[in-house]
Amino acid sequence: MEMNTAGIDIGGTNLRCGISGEDGAVKSRFSVSFGKSLNETEKQVDFIIRNIKRFLEVNEKYCVKSIGVGIAGQIDDKTGSVLFSPNLNWREVPLKYILEKETGLDVYITNDLTAIAYGEWKFGSGKGENNIICIFVGTGIGSGIIIDGSLYAGCSNAAGEIGHITVVSGGRKCICGNSGCLEAYAGGLGISNIAKERAAADMNGFKNIINAAGGGIGGISAETVARAYKAGDKKAAELIKETGFYLSDGVISAVNLLNPCVIILGGGVIDGISDLFDIVKSEVGKRALKASTSNLRILKSGLGEDAGIIGAAGLAAMHCR
Amino acid sequence: MEMNTAGIDIGGTNLRCGISGEDGAVKSRFSVSFGKSLNETEKQVDFIIRNIKRFLEVNEKYCVKSIGVGIAGQIDDKTGSVLFSPNLNWREVPLKYILEKETGLDVYITNDLTAIAYGEWKFGSGKGENNIICIFVGTGIGSGIIIDGSLYAGCSNAAGEIGHITVVSGGRKCICGNSGCLEAYAGGLGISNIAKERAAADMNGFKNIINAAGGGIGGISAETVARAYKAGDKKAAELIKETGFYLSDGVISAVNLLNPCVIILGGGVIDGISDLFDIVKSEVGKRALKASTSNLRILKSGLGEDAGIIGAAGLAAMHCR
Repeated sequence: MEMNTAGIDIGGTNLRCGISGEDGAVKSRFSVSFGKSLNETEKQVDFIIRNIKRFLEVNEKYCVKSIGVGIAGQIDDKTGSVLFSPNLNWREVPLKYILEKETGLDVYITNDLTAIAYGEWKFGSGKGENNIICIFVGTGIGSGIIIDGSLYAGCSNAAGEIGHITVVSGGRKCICGNSGCLEAYAGGLGISNIAKERAAADMNGFKNIINAAGGGIGGISAETVARAYKAGDKKAAELIKETGFYLSDGVISAVNLLNPCVIILGGGVIDGISDLFDIVKSEVGKRALKASTSNLRILKSGLGEDAGIIGAAGLAAMHCR
Repeated sequence: MEMNTAGIDIGGTNLRCGISGEDGAVKSRFSVSFGKSLNETEKQVDFIIRNIKRFLEVNEKYCVKSIGVGIAGQIDDKTGSVLFSPNLNWREVPLKYILEKETGLDVYITNDLTAIAYGEWKFGSGKGENNIICIFVGTGIGSGIIIDGSLYAGCSNAAGEIGHITVVSGGRKCICGNSGCLEAYAGGLGISNIAKERAAADMNGFKNIINAAGGGIGGISAETVARAYKAGDKKAAELIKETGFYLSDGVISAVNLLNPCVIILGGGVIDGISDLFDIVKSEVGKRALKASTSNLRILKSGLGEDAGIIGAAGLAAMHCR
């Protein structure tokens, strides 16, 4: 009988659950938004646990034996605790302990981008490659790194934070406390913050973006910018062009420093504004070192929104035997 | 009998030769500047070969059996040819072939920063560590990376080009063709270019730096800036403070992306302006992600100017048996 595993992807605003077989195919999936009222860690954990349990009950027939969880933040790989998740504002949450107690199943906890990179490597665009940087642009920007055929974790299990490389020295304040970080310019939150500031200074010029946001500056998000961009708005086009340039700076930095064979780009912002992929591909070709790009391929995510659940399930299947 | 190996370090302006034993101790050393007249590849190669042969003759008693060469540029690790060295402006120089023919010895060619990183890892500040980024600031800025106890080469043997990560999006033009690269701001050439531009715009304010350079703006270099800085000049102090901030941006980017256990800082600019080391240490502590710095140590080069020859010799001893 084929072994099935549950994969859970906990993002800053969404919980995604899936059942994945050994071939990485998703047999059942479910996703739910946290809602804005859930601003306390305890309530968020309760909500997540309740939804995972319900998902497992509904999918009882798949005889899941283990659960893999990918979550944005730094994980203690010995205890499976979430040491710190800036997006969720969690500190020291013993997620593995809680989830094992509540479900009776083996649980493996990892960073969300580690899960995504593993998924893309084993079942997505990175299949057969040994040297990959998998960069996902959502609210923030993160990456998972495969070096010489292994997931690279770093010295304290914190590697891959490409969203926090500097692209503008002394530039925009980032949620991490530093300034000038890539994600402050090219992450979903960064894009929406920049659009809001510009809209406040030029309400008339930004009327299409403001309209796309329901009439108020406060409603502007990366999604509303993307909508205005697709409708041909000039201000949105300027902003997306700049976003693409910054994103390219970050990818070029990673390419020059690490000389990977493959860059995989994915996440909500890339999926939502597919021109960004083309801009990055073109800019890297023009501006990165020739020595570092001679064998480089830049690919789109092959698994899309499923990457996190497929990767988390795959890692749990490997670690929980 | 102990095995001795020759280590050769070919920089942008200097040739360094050494005899190194198995313990990494340098038994004999010699260094010579190329001189400015040697601007053709053929003449440079002749000069280097002639000097290496003379060095080996003088040190005949050490019974050297192999030669390791570290050179700034991208190396074809199969043929030992220098594919491209931007600093020397060499293209497709079959250095291993030439040097083996001329000396009759086994020759191993590698990138200069790979040699330096290997030297620091095996015999210098990185001893006993498995996860190191070794960053040297000279005319340009480069790094060698040790990951999980191995030298990391990348997909086309070009990894480590930390000098060409972006720190100022769309900023100063870099010799690589891109703009905003770290070394355009914090490398020796970058420092001297910035100082020259500022001096030209403010001859009076920069009179101490101009004097340190012998009275002319054209003579300004990172060294003359360092001299003025040590003599208490305010403009030099401003520039060094900025240099330290940019250098920190680059180190922070590498720390957040790769989460190394150890950063080693060395090279002429760091050795010449030791406050830069303190600035970087302090800025990384303040501005890098806490998750990435919890186990991080930032160390000075332990081998200094000898790092390249010791590392190249060590790599040759390993590869040429």
